[in-house]
Amino acid sequence: MEVIAESKTKKQGTADLMKKYTYFFGNGKAQGTRDQKSLLGGKGANLAEMTNLGILVPPGFTISTVACKEFYALDEKWPDGLAAEIEENMRKLEEAAGKKFGSKDNPLLVSVRSGAAVSLPGMMDTILNLGINDDTVKGLIQKSGNERFAYDAYRRFIQMFSNVVLNVDPHGFEHILAAKKKKLKAAQDTALKAESLKEIVKEYKEFVKKKTGKPFPEDPKVQLQLSCDAVFKSWNNPRAITYRNINKVPHDLGTAVNVQAMVFGNMGETSGTGVAFTRDPGTGERKFFGEYLMNAQGEDVVAGIRTPYPISRLKEQMPEAYTQLESIYQRLESHFRDMQDLEFTIEDRKLYLLQTRSGKRAAAAAIKIACDMVSEGLITKEESILRVAPEQLEQLLHPTVDMRQKYKALAKGLPASPGAAVGQVVFNAEDAVGWAEEKGKRVVLVRMETSPEDVGGMAVAQGILTATGGMTSHAAVVARGMGKCCVVGCGQLQIDEKGKFFTLKTAAGSVKVKEGDVVSLNGTTGEVILGEVKLAKPDLGSDFKKFMGWADEVRKLKVRTNADTPEDSRVARDFGAEGIGLCRTEHMFFGENRLRAMREMILADNEKDRIKALKKLEPLQKGDFKGIFKAMAGLPVTIRLLDPPLHEFVPKGDAELKKVAKDLKISVKELEKKVQSLHEVNPMLGHRGCRLAVTYPEIYRMQAQAIFEAACELAKEGQRMVPEIMIPLVGIIGELTFTKQDIIKVAGEVMRKFKVNIEYLVGTMIEIPRAAIIAEDIAKEAEFFSFGTNDLTQMSFGFSRDDIGKFLPHYIERGILKIDPFVSLDQSGVGRLIELAVSKGRSIKPDLKVGICGEHGGDPASIEFCHRSGLDYVSCSPFRVPIARLAAAQAVLKEKKQ
Amino acid sequence: MEVIAESKTKKQGTADLMKKYTYFFGNGKAQGTRDQKSLLGGKGANLAEMTNLGILVPPGFTISTVACKEFYALDEKWPDGLAAEIEENMRKLEEAAGKKFGSKDNPLLVSVRSGAAVSLPGMMDTILNLGINDDTVKGLIQKSGNERFAYDAYRRFIQMFSNVVLNVDPHGFEHILAAKKKKLKAAQDTALKAESLKEIVKEYKEFVKKKTGKPFPEDPKVQLQLSCDAVFKSWNNPRAITYRNINKVPHDLGTAVNVQAMVFGNMGETSGTGVAFTRDPGTGERKFFGEYLMNAQGEDVVAGIRTPYPISRLKEQMPEAYTQLESIYQRLESHFRDMQDLEFTIEDRKLYLLQTRSGKRAAAAAIKIACDMVSEGLITKEESILRVAPEQLEQLLHPTVDMRQKYKALAKGLPASPGAAVGQVVFNAEDAVGWAEEKGKRVVLVRMETSPEDVGGMAVAQGILTATGGMTSHAAVVARGMGKCCVVGCGQLQIDEKGKFFTLKTAAGSVKVKEGDVVSLNGTTGEVILGEVKLAKPDLGSDFKKFMGWADEVRKLKVRTNADTPEDSRVARDFGAEGIGLCRTEHMFFGENRLRAMREMILADNEKDRIKALKKLEPLQKGDFKGIFKAMAGLPVTIRLLDPPLHEFVPKGDAELKKVAKDLKISVKELEKKVQSLHEVNPMLGHRGCRLAVTYPEIYRMQAQAIFEAACELAKEGQRMVPEIMIPLVGIIGELTFTKQDIIKVAGEVMRKFKVNIEYLVGTMIEIPRAAIIAEDIAKEAEFFSFGTNDLTQMSFGFSRDDIGKFLPHYIERGILKIDPFVSLDQSGVGRLIELAVSKGRSIKPDLKVGICGEHGGDPASIEFCHRSGLDYVSCSPFRVPIARLAAAQAVLKEKKQ
Repeated sequence: MEVIAESKTKKQGTADLMKKYTYFFGNGKAQGTRDQKSLLGGKGANLAEMTNLGILVPPGFTISTVACKEFYALDEKWPDGLAAEIEENMRKLEEAAGKKFGSKDNPLLVSVRSGAAVSLPGMMDTILNLGINDDTVKGLIQKSGNERFAYDAYRRFIQMFSNVVLNVDPHGFEHILAAKKKKLKAAQDTALKAESLKEIVKEYKEFVKKKTGKPFPEDPKVQLQLSCDAVFKSWNNPRAITYRNINKVPHDLGTAVNVQAMVFGNMGETSGTGVAFTRDPGTGERKFFGEYLMNAQGEDVVAGIRTPYPISRLKEQMPEAYTQLESIYQRLESHFRDMQDLEFTIEDRKLYLLQTRSGKRAAAAAIKIACDMVSEGLITKEESILRVAPEQLEQLLHPTVDMRQKYKALAKGLPASPGAAVGQVVFNAEDAVGWAEEKGKRVVLVRMETSPEDVGGMAVAQGILTATGGMTSHAAVVARGMGKCCVVGCGQLQIDEKGKFFTLKTAAGSVKVKEGDVVSLNGTTGEVILGEVKLAKPDLGSDFKKFMGWADEVRKLKVRTNADTPEDSRVARDFGAEGIGLCRTEHMFFGENRLRAMREMILADNEKDRIKALKKLEPLQKGDFKGIFKAMAGLPVTIRLLDPPLHEFVPKGDAELKKVAKDLKISVKELEKKVQSLHEVNPMLGHRGCRLAVTYPEIYRMQAQAIFEAACELAKEGQRMVPEIMIPLVGIIGELTFTKQDIIKVAGEVMRKFKVNIEYLVGTMIEIPRAAIIAEDIAKEAEFFSFGTNDLTQMSFGFSRDDIGKFLPHYIERGILKIDPFVSLDQSGVGRLIELAVSKGRSIKPDLKVGICGEHGGDPASIEFCHRSGLDYVSCSPFRVPIARLAAAQAVLKEKKQ
Repeated sequence: MEVIAESKTKKQGTADLMKKYTYFFGNGKAQGTRDQKSLLGGKGANLAEMTNLGILVPPGFTISTVACKEFYALDEKWPDGLAAEIEENMRKLEEAAGKKFGSKDNPLLVSVRSGAAVSLPGMMDTILNLGINDDTVKGLIQKSGNERFAYDAYRRFIQMFSNVVLNVDPHGFEHILAAKKKKLKAAQDTALKAESLKEIVKEYKEFVKKKTGKPFPEDPKVQLQLSCDAVFKSWNNPRAITYRNINKVPHDLGTAVNVQAMVFGNMGETSGTGVAFTRDPGTGERKFFGEYLMNAQGEDVVAGIRTPYPISRLKEQMPEAYTQLESIYQRLESHFRDMQDLEFTIEDRKLYLLQTRSGKRAAAAAIKIACDMVSEGLITKEESILRVAPEQLEQLLHPTVDMRQKYKALAKGLPASPGAAVGQVVFNAEDAVGWAEEKGKRVVLVRMETSPEDVGGMAVAQGILTATGGMTSHAAVVARGMGKCCVVGCGQLQIDEKGKFFTLKTAAGSVKVKEGDVVSLNGTTGEVILGEVKLAKPDLGSDFKKFMGWADEVRKLKVRTNADTPEDSRVARDFGAEGIGLCRTEHMFFGENRLRAMREMILADNEKDRIKALKKLEPLQKGDFKGIFKAMAGLPVTIRLLDPPLHEFVPKGDAELKKVAKDLKISVKELEKKVQSLHEVNPMLGHRGCRLAVTYPEIYRMQAQAIFEAACELAKEGQRMVPEIMIPLVGIIGELTFTKQDIIKVAGEVMRKFKVNIEYLVGTMIEIPRAAIIAEDIAKEAEFFSFGTNDLTQMSFGFSRDDIGKFLPHYIERGILKIDPFVSLDQSGVGRLIELAVSKGRSIKPDLKVGICGEHGGDPASIEFCHRSGLDYVSCSPFRVPIARLAAAQAVLKEKKQ
């Protein structure tokens, strides 16, 4: 949202700024400010801001995003006047730096960096030491007194420039370097002397000429021009486009270019460079946190070749610089009112700031910083709410892979449910239960894909890994509901479920993982790791509670949970759920006894036998409902009546068929025939939901009986509750009237029997596109709507979420879809259908209660949409409840801002 | 539509008529008129009209539908005043008839008949001889001088009244009658004398008392009151409700009740009764056509026990009555301006008309009568267009089962494609081709269900019979396209495709039909008949052409056809198609060579191999397109690029897998793996349509190449054509832009190569709900829209048409759906989505060409909707083109009327 808002500001500004493409900063004054991120990019705006604050920044200028956009409008040519402006700015820069670009006596070298309004990995990043050539290198030697330094800078410049500007394969340079080292028997680059580096420079240039057909550009002005071109062009390189597609960044923002005088942290022992955070990004603790190296370039600090020192040591090593830095970081934090991530360089005892930006932080740190800054009076509560990314909270709720260790992933799937898991591999639910419950072992359940019969095994497993399925596959949905780590769609795995092993090909050859082998899963990244990794435990703390309280004060959407058991209900309530938005009743039928009765019901030839089988299920369901009502005492509980097709309950495979046939005392052949008769070509569009109740009304009658008996018994004990009975898959008004009349009848009978009056609602899922279209008719009969956005997405797009894996990656890659619509609600398509249904429904019943219970109910962007669309509540899996609470609060604040 | 229009008139009238429930007719004057069908029912309105025309009708009165509606509003009680009105009318009736109700000297007997605005089978029909009891029977004997006649009338009345009014099982009466006959050794009812009938009357009454616990009502007034009640109630009996649901008749119309003085055609040899048509209902010939019997009751004429005489014989037998009848029929026809179906009775030489109504007629007769009446100046051309039901035309285009023969159906399925077929049963496509082409035999192809690979076999078969699938299954769609008789979803069949036989259970035991046995199919009724039936050949004639010409003058919708071959295109053009609205390109890939190349393409691991395989297909496709362009020279041809999922093309079954693996020189295992990888859980929502082109762009490129090369080659020969290239399954704007840019590129390349300029369009199917929702975005890129209503219906409802059979019958039965939405477009749901898309699309491009190419394009009600929604054309299978032309014309005229 921020990006779009800024983009608007920028557009308004375009006309006035038409003839100005460059913004100078230096000598304590800058033409730009921090508010011009869309014009100057994040880096440029903050360099300007620091300059204006009187902080020493190497002078330079920013070529604005307007220039970039005109560059594209002019078919990759510079707009009129840009060249002249750059020339003028270079003159100012020479003056400020006291050096001359292209001079062989006192040469000015510059860095050229891209910098868009949002950080974009994949764009051209940086060219250092630009301006160096056979002439100017002499001045550099003279000024630095260090020939080796100068030729090393030269060599690096050629390599960097040739790679990013001239598109020369970097391997060629490495070969030359390696050959030279081999010849001189030098182990490290640092062992090469100035003379050798000089030779390498020559060889590099010959190599570039051979590859490009042209000599390496010696003219600093040409170097600068080509570099600016390269930055502009990098805005539209495939990696950047893909990143923007995935992260929903508009493609027309363009990038700025920052040209800045070079300062060198590697000019000797009075020089150095470092990165620092104004608070601890891991814990949020309020202390200056960072690392530095003396006589080093910026990249050396992060490259890991030399071990940097903690920032506190700088105090001893160079107390003056440290004191300066300390005062700067405090000013920057209170100026930007957020934790900052700084880069600095000390050139010959002189401290320069190269960058400041809001620092990335871990979830716990984000909460602590937000709370602390409110206490410190630095930000308001409302601002603090916007400082924590809702998705981050999930890190807090699950154990995670301890990121301080190094590990190598064996394979990568989709990160379906976050957290981490370590355990021994098992290949079916029965083994999972056996190993975990009987042998007390930690297991990871590995399946091609999971089905409802695997739920027992999933419940006892540490984590779940599947070879197929997407982010909303059965495994993913159930695992998220359980708050259990899950990696799905790991297509590299070749699973032999019978043989109880999987194999996969890696660069290093084929790997075979057998039952009992230990693997680890990183549900946050989708990585599968052979062996055990260390886990970090979750810890919520008091700041979490305080922070979430602030969010709760702000938000308007209620947050309910999707829970099918008393356990899930309690977990969700602890996380702040305000009721159940979706209690799926089918999971209740998968227990041992229940499945048997369910199968009897399905296999019955007539209504009488079906009713007989249902009678066995009724007391069991009643017990389930009582447990859930108790766990949610005083809160609303939405119960969805049976939804899945009956074939999900029938036995699969020969062994199971035999067992069930024996159990039910019918022949295998007869059983097979019945199973066959339940087969559907497109089960998603088949005989399920209320369609079952139209053909077998006795099913919903039994469920209604169980619900009302449970409620009446508890009401007699003094408990208050409002069951909200939800009819799934309604697309035709008659489906609702037909099923509703039975429910009302059963409710009346049960209440008369118990002599108790229970308040209840009968409503419907809106998950069939037709239901949204005729929502005004449905609202006449329904007492609430609950959008089932999983199915609504499937049917609106005509995408089967079980099959989407075949083409979704291509859609994302080609930019046809920006994001999997099962992960984040498709606001421009499915969302319009939802808005239509809400407005049609409320046109009949202005206070119609409307919620959402699909997987999207836990996705922040979707929650923001639900808020804007006037929904009453979202419902999500227990572990996403805090995320939804925060996202709902942010939605209010973002709306306010606009 | 007519029903609804009348229903409105009626509502407006209700207020004025509030206090009047009855309408008298008799003595040459009636209170009602023909225009009051909704108030008096069809029968009552026409009885009134005939009376006003001075035609002798037995006097009587009609109790209006308002009374019926108030009866329901008052919880099945008579409204105030109704009883008094009936009493008053009975007095008038006594006066007019010169008899007295309940008199033992000169008793008035009456008939009580239901009569709604539309004819409704399943409602209570008729009670005759009401008013008879132990007293009045004496008067009847005295007046008729025929004791046997009087007691027979009495017996019949008790039986009829007890059955329809008192709900007594009719079998009880038959037992009594049979026992009496046995005792008296009488073979026929007619052998029973008056005395025996008198005894039977007594026994009947005892039986009724035993069954109902009350004596049989002797009071004529009570008889009348109970009969009226029974008629009112019969409006809502289950059969009537079902009929209304299926035929889309509103449930709130109510029925009228006609009470009329009895006249007797069975009073002796100067009495008689008959039915007649003012023109021949079989041929349409303008001649008086009918049958009669002397000394008989109405039901004897149609019961088939006595053979009636042709009406011409009445001229000799009773010239006076005949002359009168002749003048009456001519007056009625010119008055009602339509062919009439009359019922008359002659009582002692006096001619009474009992009913007149528009006569049902065969298709050929309908056309001839329409044309003749226009020539005669009786009706206008526009009126004539509304006189023929579009669906009827189908009878004319196919050979049909000759209805003059009697046959017994072995089984009944869904009438998927009309016409008739006789042939020897074969169980697979290969055998069909072998028997038909090689052995020259007529075959009927029997399959569980058909797949695209069966198309060759279907083409050579006389007809197709499947055990599964609905009206829009593969078999049904393809057969209709071919104009070939087809019966689908015949669930009684147990087919053993391997054993080459099917069995089915009938009341008479199990029947086994083996390969080579002869069966006949009636595609109009869905009947399967063992052995050969006689067929009637189609004959269009010159009237057909003239009539269709009139329709063409009126209609605004263009009518195109769905055709995939030059042959189909030619047939459709002969039937009046104005272009192709849907040319499916996938059927072109099922030839022997083509399937091989297609499979090579599918099994290829990389783009290069795919392109290689596609290169083999390209010249073959080009040839197909040339053939179709030639057949449709000068007309638009819409070509849909590849749509079905790739797994439809892969081999199925072990034998085929082996064959294909050998053919493609890969291992069976490898082939199996690939086939497995193409499997989808919900193929309908899977990897198909433009989704294939996003992952494999080379497929559409090849197809575009073939289209433009074909067009350019023909253009060089001087032919003009406008290829309309249609992208299927678009739901996201990027799908269209991505595929479109390739097509434009290929078009440009080919046209440059041929140095020819071809006009062409690139448009899209609207068949995904999301596409309708974002239609304004799509309209920016698409040059036309074509609604794929099959898929749009599937996804809007979330119904898989392959699986709907499991619950659709229950939906129809319970009135949740009035009609299969795959047969007639769901106007209130899917239709609103279509209207939305049209309006959004035209908001961007006001002259956007919009058509429909789903199966609904051939359904008259759907065509009327398309006209109202402002579509430009409908496209349907060749044999439905005339139907669509007529329906489109009727849509204009109906709209005008409103």
